[in-house]
Amino acid sequence: MAQARRAKPPIAILTDFGYRDHYAGAIKGVIAAIAPGAQIIDITHGIPAQSIVAGALALRESWRYFPPKTIFLAVVDPGVGTARLPIAIETRAGARLVGPDNGLLWLAAEDAGIARAVHISSRRYRLETVSATFHGRDIFAPAAAWLWRGAPIGALGPRLAEIARLELPKPAVSGRQIRGEVIYVDGFGNLVTNIGREIIASLKATFPESRVWVRIDRGAAMEIRGTYGDAPTGASVATFGSFELLEIAVRDGNAAERLKAGPGAPIIVTASKK
Amino acid sequence: MAQARRAKPPIAILTDFGYRDHYAGAIKGVIAAIAPGAQIIDITHGIPAQSIVAGALALRESWRYFPPKTIFLAVVDPGVGTARLPIAIETRAGARLVGPDNGLLWLAAEDAGIARAVHISSRRYRLETVSATFHGRDIFAPAAAWLWRGAPIGALGPRLAEIARLELPKPAVSGRQIRGEVIYVDGFGNLVTNIGREIIASLKATFPESRVWVRIDRGAAMEIRGTYGDAPTGASVATFGSFELLEIAVRDGNAAERLKAGPGAPIIVTASKK
Amino acid sequence: MAQARRAKPPIAILTDFGYRDHYAGAIKGVIAAIAPGAQIIDITHGIPAQSIVAGALALRESWRYFPPKTIFLAVVDPGVGTARLPIAIETRAGARLVGPDNGLLWLAAEDAGIARAVHISSRRYRLETVSATFHGRDIFAPAAAWLWRGAPIGALGPRLAEIARLELPKPAVSGRQIRGEVIYVDGFGNLVTNIGREIIASLKATFPESRVWVRIDRGAAMEIRGTYGDAPTGASVATFGSFELLEIAVRDGNAAERLKAGPGAPIIVTASKK
Repeated sequence: MAQARRAKPPIAILTDFGYRDHYAGAIKGVIAAIAPGAQIIDITHGIPAQSIVAGALALRESWRYFPPKTIFLAVVDPGVGTARLPIAIETRAGARLVGPDNGLLWLAAEDAGIARAVHISSRRYRLETVSATFHGRDIFAPAAAWLWRGAPIGALGPRLAEIARLELPKPAVSGRQIRGEVIYVDGFGNLVTNIGREIIASLKATFPESRVWVRIDRGAAMEIRGTYGDAPTGASVATFGSFELLEIAVRDGNAAERLKAGPGAPIIVTASKK
Repeated sequence: MAQARRAKPPIAILTDFGYRDHYAGAIKGVIAAIAPGAQIIDITHGIPAQSIVAGALALRESWRYFPPKTIFLAVVDPGVGTARLPIAIETRAGARLVGPDNGLLWLAAEDAGIARAVHISSRRYRLETVSATFHGRDIFAPAAAWLWRGAPIGALGPRLAEIARLELPKPAVSGRQIRGEVIYVDGFGNLVTNIGREIIASLKATFPESRVWVRIDRGAAMEIRGTYGDAPTGASVATFGSFELLEIAVRDGNAAERLKAGPGAPIIVTASKK
Repeated sequence: MAQARRAKPPIAILTDFGYRDHYAGAIKGVIAAIAPGAQIIDITHGIPAQSIVAGALALRESWRYFPPKTIFLAVVDPGVGTARLPIAIETRAGARLVGPDNGLLWLAAEDAGIARAVHISSRRYRLETVSATFHGRDIFAPAAAWLWRGAPIGALGPRLAEIARLELPKPAVSGRQIRGEVIYVDGFGNLVTNIGREIIASLKATFPESRVWVRIDRGAAMEIRGTYGDAPTGASVATFGSFELLEIAVRDGNAAERLKAGPGAPIIVTASKK
């Protein structure tokens, strides 16, 4: 029986509800009421308000570290109550994703592989009264809790042929230069870019006699280091962070504040001899 | 046995301890030590510091979504160590509430119905050493944990005939006008008013030929919409939010900042032909 | 069996990861994946970024309230990826501590008594791929989860003869005066000093005919009260807070903002007749 209990995956929650209000608490209450004994794990409720991109990145960067059949409940939902559908996704990797169809689930779903997506429409798996402004509590939390209890995803509603996508900007390569941009600023102020390891490796392979320099817009050029701590205190450092993307950080400091940069800031990588 | 375990309700916690310190952690440690295996759910620790009204509203808006016999531990306690009593309440709806007798528990208790209130005075159900500044850890958390373990509420201390009340301001109706006010600003900046659905419905019924307009003080008049998303991005919108109260929001934005309004701001609802 | 389950201590987590990102979520995912069924308790993820002292104090002030064999996972790690070692400590009190060897674990370890400290070096107890920037996820969380599953601490790696210490500044006594300083500001703005009860008691015993006054630098002198609420709203008050250290607070307000003081501010305690 302990074995059986152990087999039950957690329900992991990610929202932009913040920490001043009861909103995250109410959805956890709904889960506890429908799925007593379910382990509830807060990924975070501090996604910047209404930032679908930040939520989608956080979900993509978390899902694979959880037990395989974890149910992820994600709510960043500026269009709550409008035409955007409530959806649930079963992934090839086993994880289930529940949330609004506004791109929030896309990056994780793409990463985990979509086995099936459904429109959550059955009244049986939502609260009796559904408000116009809080589908996290009234629709998404119940759906996640019922999946945990064993409801098959198909019971939630009809299959969807497509779900909303979210395309992150792609870096452009031209000769000795890669032009990318900052796509995310984390809570430490680290600037996460859209430039991955492979594209840098390919630049290096093409120009083996050169060194690789990184700069923000017209800022000072830096070489890529192994980790934050390879720079002296207060200095800027370019490194591959935990997103497996090029990041610009300030050792023991806040790069976003110090370098006055945020999402959209141009990042230039150059291969040159000196 | 799984069944027995499932029957155990969670302990849900709501405080103004914030997230910089170990305070919320210490009370969870006390609960885990006294009530091993109890599910602990954070409603929030981000209630604005010392704001009894915000805490009381958050508790009122949460309790009913939790399993029926949930134990709520609520601590917003500017008068810690003074004459205000530590109390526990058994509600008619089944929920148990533990916290300081300063009005914090009132709105939820009134909503759930008070079956019995007691003064937590038994030394048996507190930590051995009680500090003067942290009753959340030394008195309230142990009391909640012992209730979870099955201690009858009467064992905590003597019955109280009355507990501290918290009265929210009531809207005033005069002819075609309702004068209310903002009573709460949530983390999205939405302005929650003290004006409920019934009072607006009654205005509409009395003046069926009229339309209903909402404004903040001398601001622009708005009609009431179904949800936030019914307004274009950046526009103000009046709607009934998840509190079932009239709210003023800005689509994809922060109404408190944008409209420079906060608790106490006058809200005027008018029935007029144009 | 319920008994057996109850015997399992929780894993308690304390980090400076903040609440905007998925970082705390990812480490909880790792724990849930390796140690299904483990109760995970967030002490806080809001330790000020890179503040080893704040993290060390929070851990020292929490550990003793948790069940005896709790596993504490603490990550404030500005030197991630550099020479500082990942370590695990078994304490005489039973608690286990996991984190970077940068002083973060010292105050709690000293308080609980060090039975054994090891360098976490075994590849068996970490994630397959270890990043250079996120050892919380890749090394510390797996080590904590494996300890919870019953791995002996010695399996994690070789014993260490010494670990990094963290010395808090000590107050200086000279005649009728104690000179201390603010060592921590909590989320309420309370100024926690390095002056304990005993040193004040000793001053009182030496000068029994005198009264004891506290001031910040050249600020107004205050007497020591029993609790925050012994001051009128808006007034400053000196009291022994939950750290069992002298604290300066403002009743219903924020002392750090009001008195413009922070870590390092001089605190003068004087015994004098008037």
